[in-house]
Amino acid sequence: MPELRKDPITGRWVIISSERGKRPTDFQDQRGKKRGGFCPFCAGNERTTPNEILAYRDNGQPNGPGWRLRTVPNKFPALQIEGDLNKQGEGIFDKMNGIGAHEVIIESPDHNASLATLPLRAMEEVLWAYRDRMVDLKRDIRFQYTLIFKNEGLTAGATLEHTHSQLIALPIVPIQVQEEIDGCRKHYNLKERCVFCDIIRQEIQQKNRLILENNAFISVAPFASRFPFETWILPKTHYSSYEHMNSSLYEQAAQILSETLSRMNRVLNDPPYNYVIHTSSFSGLEAEHYHWHFEIMPKLTKVAGFEWGTGFYINPTPPEEAAEYLREAK
Amino acid sequence: MPELRKDPITGRWVIISSERGKRPTDFQDQRGKKRGGFCPFCAGNERTTPNEILAYRDNGQPNGPGWRLRTVPNKFPALQIEGDLNKQGEGIFDKMNGIGAHEVIIESPDHNASLATLPLRAMEEVLWAYRDRMVDLKRDIRFQYTLIFKNEGLTAGATLEHTHSQLIALPIVPIQVQEEIDGCRKHYNLKERCVFCDIIRQEIQQKNRLILENNAFISVAPFASRFPFETWILPKTHYSSYEHMNSSLYEQAAQILSETLSRMNRVLNDPPYNYVIHTSSFSGLEAEHYHWHFEIMPKLTKVAGFEWGTGFYINPTPPEEAAEYLREAK
Repeated sequence: MPELRKDPITGRWVIISSERGKRPTDFQDQRGKKRGGFCPFCAGNERTTPNEILAYRDNGQPNGPGWRLRTVPNKFPALQIEGDLNKQGEGIFDKMNGIGAHEVIIESPDHNASLATLPLRAMEEVLWAYRDRMVDLKRDIRFQYTLIFKNEGLTAGATLEHTHSQLIALPIVPIQVQEEIDGCRKHYNLKERCVFCDIIRQEIQQKNRLILENNAFISVAPFASRFPFETWILPKTHYSSYEHMNSSLYEQAAQILSETLSRMNRVLNDPPYNYVIHTSSFSGLEAEHYHWHFEIMPKLTKVAGFEWGTGFYINPTPPEEAAEYLREAK
Repeated sequence: MPELRKDPITGRWVIISSERGKRPTDFQDQRGKKRGGFCPFCAGNERTTPNEILAYRDNGQPNGPGWRLRTVPNKFPALQIEGDLNKQGEGIFDKMNGIGAHEVIIESPDHNASLATLPLRAMEEVLWAYRDRMVDLKRDIRFQYTLIFKNEGLTAGATLEHTHSQLIALPIVPIQVQEEIDGCRKHYNLKERCVFCDIIRQEIQQKNRLILENNAFISVAPFASRFPFETWILPKTHYSSYEHMNSSLYEQAAQILSETLSRMNRVLNDPPYNYVIHTSSFSGLEAEHYHWHFEIMPKLTKVAGFEWGTGFYINPTPPEEAAEYLREAK
C-alpha cells in the first residue's frame, strides 16, 4: 500500500509509492531507457490495458476498437483506489494510506498523433474527458482534488510516447495549488477582486505578454515566468473550477490550447513540455477568489536542480520576448 | 540589467535574466551540448576567471597558482552586483533591479577531483569558504539571503565539470526557504520547540531513517522525502544559521558530508546530484524556531515535469529503504 506522508515543516504531502519499490540499480537501468516496440495505447491493443472507465466511440464494444478517446486506470498506479485513508501519526509525523485514483487519458487511437496536431474536435473531446472524470471523481468523499497533467516527450517524464494525459485524484490538495488558492484569497480579502481577473485585464491592455486571444480565453507569458516560454491559458470570464465552466467554452478552450501548442512546436522545434490544470479544490468550487487555468511549461533548460530545494528560478528568456516569438509564429 | 519579479499570486520571486537573452534556437543547441576542452577553473588558468574574491593558498599571489580553494565572481552572473534595487510597480506587478552576488567556489585546483573524494581537510575548507563568503555578504544591506548550492553532473545542471559550488546573495528570501521558516515558526508558537530538533530526537531514537551520526551531526532520509535517496544533514545542536555554527563543528560537518556523498556514490554509481544549504535569512539569524541544514537531492528520476507545477512529488523509494542501503554501504 502506498503512503501519503506530510512534511512536518512545510505541510507538503508526498506519495511514498512502495509498490514501485525502486532499488538503486533500477535508476541506472532507467537512465538509458529506450522507447518503442509494443504500445498498449494503440487501437487493437485495448485488452492490454486495465478496463476502460470512460470512452468516446464511433462504434464497437467497451475495451474493443472503434474509440476516439479512452480513459483507463494507470497500470502502475502511484495510488490505490480501494481502501480507507486510515489517517495516523508516527511520533511527530503524519501519514495516511495512499488512496487515490490514477488514470490515463489516451487522446487518440493513432500512435503517431500528437495533441497539438489533433483535429479541433478531438482536442475538444480531450477537454471534455478531463471534465467528465473530474465530475465523477468528486463524488468520492475521500478526495479533495483532481490533478490533470500531461508529460510530452521523454525528458518531460513521458514513459510511453503514444499521446496521453494523466489524472490523479487525491485526498489532499497539492501544496502549490493550495498556496495559489491562499494567495488569491489574500488578494480578494484586500481588494474584493480575483487576482487572475486583475492579471487578465492588465495583460489584455498592456499586450506585450499576450500571445493569443479568442472570445473566451487568453494565452499569456506570465509576468514572473519561472521557465523560458512558460505559458498560461486563462478563461476571460471568472470560473473557479474547470468542470463548472460553461459548456459553450470547451470549443474555444480547445482552439486556444491547440494553437498555443502548435506555435510552441514551431518556435521551439517540438519541445518536451508539461502542462497542468490548476483548478479549485472540491471544498471551494464556486469561489470568487480563485480562477482555473492551464500552466504550460516547455522543458528547455537543464538548470533544474537546486530549484527543487529553493523554489527559486532563474529564467533566461524575458516573458515579453517569449510572447513576441509566439505571437509572430503564425 | 536582470530583473527580480514577484508572482502576484504566490509571492514567489524569480530572476528574469535578460542579459543571458536566450532565443529559441539557443535551447536546441544546448540539448546536445558537450563538455570538455579548456577549463577556466584549473590551476594555471586563473587569469581566465574574473578576479578572485577569496582564496586559501599555500603560496603565490592572488589570481596566480598556489591555491587550494578559490572563490570568483560567476563570469555569466544571473544577478548584477553594482546598483540600486529601484523597487517599483508595473500595474499590479512588483519588480526590482536584479541586484545580487553570484559567485563560484572552486573546490580544488585538480580537474579530476570530486567533492566526495577530497581529503577531509579540503572538504572542511569548502565549508569554511561558504561561511566566509556568507559573513562578508551579509554586511551588504541590500541583501536578505545567501543561497549556497552545488550542481554535480550534467543532468543536475553543472555546465563545467571541474568540481565547484555556487553562491547567490539575494535581496529577497527564496520562497521555499521562507515557507520553511514560517512553518518552523508555527511549530514553535504551538510547542515552544524547534521542529527540526524534534525531528532529530525522533530519528535518533527510531533509527530506521538514520544514515549516519557523529558527535555533532546526523544524516537522515527525511520522513516525507520528495526524491529517491533524498538526504538531509542536520546539526544535533540548535543553530539557526550556518555561519554562526561553532567553529569546532566544521570538521564534523566535513566528515559527515564527505561520508554521506561517498556512500551515495557507492550505492547509486556516482549519481548526478544537487545540494543546497537552508539557513536563516539575515533578519532571523539567532532564531529559536529555525535550524540550518543541508538538503542533498540525487537526480535519479526523470519524472520531474509536473512537480514544478504542483509541488507534488511521487517518490518510488521509501526513505526507510534508502537509509538502509546507505547505512550498509560501508
